[in-house]
Amino acid sequence: MRYELYYWPSIQGRGEFVRLALEEAAADYVDVVRENGGMSAMTRLMEDPNVARPPFAPPFLKAGRLLIGQTANILLFLGSGHRLAPKDEAGRLWTNQLQLTLADLVVETHDTHHPIAAGLYYEDQKPAARRRAEDFRRNRIPKFLGYFERVLERNPRGDRWLVGARLTYADLSLFQVVEGLSYAFPRAMQRQAKRYPKVVALHDRVASRPRIKAYLASERRISFNEEGIFRRYRELDG
Amino acid sequence: MRYELYYWPSIQGRGEFVRLALEEAAADYVDVVRENGGMSAMTRLMEDPNVARPPFAPPFLKAGRLLIGQTANILLFLGSGHRLAPKDEAGRLWTNQLQLTLADLVVETHDTHHPIAAGLYYEDQKPAARRRAEDFRRNRIPKFLGYFERVLERNPRGDRWLVGARLTYADLSLFQVVEGLSYAFPRAMQRQAKRYPKVVALHDRVASRPRIKAYLASERRISFNEEGIFRRYRELDG
Repeated sequence: MRYELYYWPSIQGRGEFVRLALEEAAADYVDVVRENGGMSAMTRLMEDPNVARPPFAPPFLKAGRLLIGQTANILLFLGSGHRLAPKDEAGRLWTNQLQLTLADLVVETHDTHHPIAAGLYYEDQKPAARRRAEDFRRNRIPKFLGYFERVLERNPRGDRWLVGARLTYADLSLFQVVEGLSYAFPRAMQRQAKRYPKVVALHDRVASRPRIKAYLASERRISFNEEGIFRRYRELDG
Repeated sequence: MRYELYYWPSIQGRGEFVRLALEEAAADYVDVVRENGGMSAMTRLMEDPNVARPPFAPPFLKAGRLLIGQTANILLFLGSGHRLAPKDEAGRLWTNQLQLTLADLVVETHDTHHPIAAGLYYEDQKPAARRRAEDFRRNRIPKFLGYFERVLERNPRGDRWLVGARLTYADLSLFQVVEGLSYAFPRAMQRQAKRYPKVVALHDRVASRPRIKAYLASERRISFNEEGIFRRYRELDG
């Protein structure tokens, strides 16, 4: 079965967490909206009154007859089908829990440049963005990355991966978050990264996985840019 | 087995979504932090270096040897054990997807009064809060409630519940969100509610479930207040 991923075609955004899982799993998938006619296919699906279980927003994944929305939910689904999460209930829940914590961090990252409204331009909310970003750099990045450092320290199976002794989709997502924060806040991350050596080592370990490495070097990997979640605005980096 | 819920004792907050599920399931549970010595028990658990899978933040639920964090994750767990979600994979994923969409709405609601930083007082971010709340009332409430109205319309098993023909934890959560928005934004909700008759009917249907009705009338139900997620600030209600 070929998966169909529906997501905005010019940003990494939330879709990237799904792309990374599909790539690591070597799953057969098409990134629909990057194909000819893909955008209207996505719009059609979102507006089709015959879709009984409509997604609220991209990304969503078509898997046979299933149409699955919400990033963490898509990963929960892919995790069990592609050995990207443990099989036991405790391990599956723990992986999902870590993913949801990363999702919280992603929302907060987005809101550093859009603290007032996603529908307004960044330029229309710059003073608020500057204040929010300062709090984010000082308090939120350390709180979240410190947490994941602790999770790695405490993993009874060692500090290579977040969950047990094998890579899960939560590792892929932590890689992406570190990559994104390093793009958006290079100075803050440069200063802070040394406090989280296990998180940084995990990032590097994911980046050197053969399939991830090939993906990152391919044109399938969209570059970071100032339309996505992780944006580089010098004035937000302190 | 008696569940132990850990959450702040003086607000509904995110813990309330878990409380509602436990109450509807007539589950045996203790709201730990509302008992004597409960706060230090929660702090101890959060700081205990021997906890291999530490939660990032409350709420979390102790279920035998499992310690489960993240609201939607706790509900995913309770849903399968207490018939608060379908058994089939498609139904479980769909219920989780709706819960995650409600969780997004909860974050946005919180940020109407804390658009700059959760660690600052509301009084230190009032102008930004006013702008964010205006966008929230005008654009975000209609987008989310319109979505859930559509989900109810399209449910092939009828518009009584969000998923299939039985109540799920997503219905309990939608009840709580409507209740909370009506507390926080009484004027905006008064104007808008008539556009979402199925959502309002679902809210009323949940409120009249015998166990929920008894819970809401009990002292176990904490009142809404200006420390929680849903806060009534007249200036944010337009």
